Amino acid sequence: MKKERQSMLTQRVQDNPFLTDEELSEIFSVSIPTIRLDRLELGIPELRERIKNVAAENHSKVKSLHSREIIGELLDISLNKKAISMLETDNSMVFEKTKIVRGNFIYSLAESIAIAVIDAQVALVGVANIKYKIPVYAGSKLIARAEVRRIKENNFMVWVKITEKQMEVFRGKFILVAIK
Amino acid sequence: MKKERQSMLTQRVQDNPFLTDEELSEIFSVSIPTIRLDRLELGIPELRERIKNVAAENHSKVKSLHSREIIGELLDISLNKKAISMLETDNSMVFEKTKIVRGNFIYSLAESIAIAVIDAQVALVGVANIKYKIPVYAGSKLIARAEVRRIKENNFMVWVKITEKQMEVFRGKFILVAIK
Repeated sequence: MKKERQSMLTQRVQDNPFLTDEELSEIFSVSIPTIRLDRLELGIPELRERIKNVAAENHSKVKSLHSREIIGELLDISLNKKAISMLETDNSMVFEKTKIVRGNFIYSLAESIAIAVIDAQVALVGVANIKYKIPVYAGSKLIARAEVRRIKENNFMVWVKITEKQMEVFRGKFILVAIK
Repeated sequence: MKKERQSMLTQRVQDNPFLTDEELSEIFSVSIPTIRLDRLELGIPELRERIKNVAAENHSKVKSLHSREIIGELLDISLNKKAISMLETDNSMVFEKTKIVRGNFIYSLAESIAIAVIDAQVALVGVANIKYKIPVYAGSKLIARAEVRRIKENNFMVWVKITEKQMEVFRGKFILVAIK
């Protein structure tokens, strides 16, 4: 039974490296310490490590930015189509008074993925229409999804939606220009 | 003649603390070293110091942000009306490949002044429509001017224009919400 679970666990994590130990414990109806033990025995690194590995792989696909210029961890990317990144917000990003994450950090996450998704050596934002829908606090995990909606010669229209726990907190439409 | 010039120079700098030594030398048709000597004798600090002094005075007028949360030097502010700030861009702000200043630094300057100008303890950006008009390089001095165009209950519409050497490089319309 343990063997069976461990083989399924390996498969599951391969399919979706972003499953938390908690989610895995629910899938297999075992405790979180059991999942941790399984991971140890199977040599599956913890979530944070898995995210880093995936991000490093994805970084190498990006043309328009150097990897250290990308804001957040790049979870998935398909050039000129779509990309997903993640940013964990912390106390250095918030307004002192309200502890709400400053808009410019959210904007930077969105702008960064909008540029990264473009299949060009250089891509610059020309226009952006953005909307902050729900305030975000330190400690939240923001998932940014970029989708290239239109390509016309050197012009790209990219939509970026940022969610926290499935709730949309931000959306933006970016018009970018690729420069040769 | 020297006395007369020095008395006029004091007046000029009081009226406009942002005059450079070069500009002053043109105004009085003397060399830049002469202006420097005049300043030394009159105890008028150099431009950078004068900007810092003005910025510190202005910081204390801002309600919606702590002074260290303001991006750039705050050159002038009149709450719920208008504000001016300045940012000197440097190499830490540019894309490696092109040396063009990253959009998010320009956005942050604009967002910061749009929030600072609001006469409220807390102001959050809801919507922003922005346009980058000309690429900016490291070492440029960006002047951001915010103007409150409409106030309707807790909603504020603020226009921000950023120029470099009189050229408009960015403009944005921000809709902010003040929270009590």
